[in-house]
Amino acid sequence: MAILVVGSVAFDSIQTPHGKREKCLGGAATHFALAASFFSPVRVIAVVGEDFTGTEESVLKQRAVDTQGIEHLPGKSFHWSGSYLRTLNEADTLNTELNVFESFEPKIPSSYGDSEFLFLANIDPALQSKVRAAMPKVKMVCGDTMNFWISGQRDKLAAVLRELDVLLINDGEAKMLANDQNLVGAADKILKMGPKTLIVKHGEFGATAFFSERSFADGKKRVPFRAPALPLAEVIDPTGAGDSFAGGFFGYLAAQPEVTPAAFRAAMFYGGVMGSFCVERFGTERAQSLTREEIDQRFALFKEISHLE
Amino acid sequence: MAILVVGSVAFDSIQTPHGKREKCLGGAATHFALAASFFSPVRVIAVVGEDFTGTEESVLKQRAVDTQGIEHLPGKSFHWSGSYLRTLNEADTLNTELNVFESFEPKIPSSYGDSEFLFLANIDPALQSKVRAAMPKVKMVCGDTMNFWISGQRDKLAAVLRELDVLLINDGEAKMLANDQNLVGAADKILKMGPKTLIVKHGEFGATAFFSERSFADGKKRVPFRAPALPLAEVIDPTGAGDSFAGGFFGYLAAQPEVTPAAFRAAMFYGGVMGSFCVERFGTERAQSLTREEIDQRFALFKEISHLE
Repeated sequence: MAILVVGSVAFDSIQTPHGKREKCLGGAATHFALAASFFSPVRVIAVVGEDFTGTEESVLKQRAVDTQGIEHLPGKSFHWSGSYLRTLNEADTLNTELNVFESFEPKIPSSYGDSEFLFLANIDPALQSKVRAAMPKVKMVCGDTMNFWISGQRDKLAAVLRELDVLLINDGEAKMLANDQNLVGAADKILKMGPKTLIVKHGEFGATAFFSERSFADGKKRVPFRAPALPLAEVIDPTGAGDSFAGGFFGYLAAQPEVTPAAFRAAMFYGGVMGSFCVERFGTERAQSLTREEIDQRFALFKEISHLE
Repeated sequence: MAILVVGSVAFDSIQTPHGKREKCLGGAATHFALAASFFSPVRVIAVVGEDFTGTEESVLKQRAVDTQGIEHLPGKSFHWSGSYLRTLNEADTLNTELNVFESFEPKIPSSYGDSEFLFLANIDPALQSKVRAAMPKVKMVCGDTMNFWISGQRDKLAAVLRELDVLLINDGEAKMLANDQNLVGAADKILKMGPKTLIVKHGEFGATAFFSERSFADGKKRVPFRAPALPLAEVIDPTGAGDSFAGGFFGYLAAQPEVTPAAFRAAMFYGGVMGSFCVERFGTERAQSLTREEIDQRFALFKEISHLE
């Protein structure tokens, strides 16, 4: 089933210990869409400037991502500059130019109306709510956010959280959102804010899903599920790893006949798989050369590193 | 098969957000022995002072731990004081009184001579080497160390590492020992220092085993194995969690007919299980009330939180 993603399509200028790239294609919606495209049809809502040309668009189109909803405006695209020279675990933002993204007003093409899965990438919660409201019939909504919105737009974020099937954030964001330094305590509090299920990403240590009674149709509360990450000898560029995780997770889930606990667990493994590929090269480079066969091989590897038998 | 452990049997004074305990029974060898005792016979080599009475000894004896090798000397036992008020992830040492431990000279009772598994808990590497040399016929040697010995006794530690089947340390120690901030890179370097297998403990994120061609009899190099930790709503006292992990891991392994890859993986799960119990109460309290049935139930839970099927 088709996934609609709303978020940033941007240019990133990135420095890591392995080199640098100037204005390479990036943005949460881009990384999400490329990862999800290996499993399900993906449609993007975003805004770009005149510097986003056919070259950039072809990266998405070659993965059959529907770009009709990418609005082209005069001016420049969102441009983020970051450095991982201090640590690969966290980007130091050097510069953020919002450009056309500053006045982003998501517009949903009528051809996107039958999308059954909705991913609200990390943007202003007011915009997330707006897109959610415009898609009342979707089956499943998954969303991301960040510290900036948690501290600055708590009321608007609360409205988004009430609409989410799955909230996907990292450890620091979860602890900040719940104001609880214990992850299990934080998860309990966040699940009471609205999301049926919470996935907390732990970077190199994988991700944990915390379930509520509302997670699955049977009304049963389940124990958490922890998916591993692959121990990597080299991380070339961490940018987009979290969005690639989300894309692998949600893309796989949207392709299943039903969202069962078993499908959810496998989806988390595919999330880890897509995150592990993303960081192997700069920007979208690895996703562009990736094959489904490589994905399935790595899924088997994830099982091998984590399963008793 | 019987395990011989050499290490500290001590008193701990502990502060955590959940309360405090003055001079409760602790020490690496104590926590290791109690955890391992649920799987295999355990024999302890340590030194204590006059403050170590029948009350403390009975904690070990009730778990059928052989205490013949605990030497009693005039004076006081090793006494460590630590606080977890700043963070539960790391103890702030408030005071260390080595007392009789300062001149510890391990003496191995003749009745311990047929021990087939040897655990060298975190003590001076010169003493670890001495005990290792006195037990030439053991089948398997597992060892721990810490930043203090890594920075201060590198040559003596190197001699210990060459004798180890398994080195069991945490993330920070592994990166420090290898002088490499990437865990996979650090593991490669450490495996070249001698240990056939390296287990790196990640606290709340579980543990990863890194294998070499020498890990198992078949000479095959395997991909890493990651065992989960249980997400816990409450950590009452983290003291001894790492030693309990080691005890569960090595205790289970010593009880198997052969050290196969499958047995090794299960042993890592049992390590996580024993660590998860340890932190539920202060000091050795949880280990004292624990049953094998509870252990097996939690092993099943570890499988449930980490396995696709």
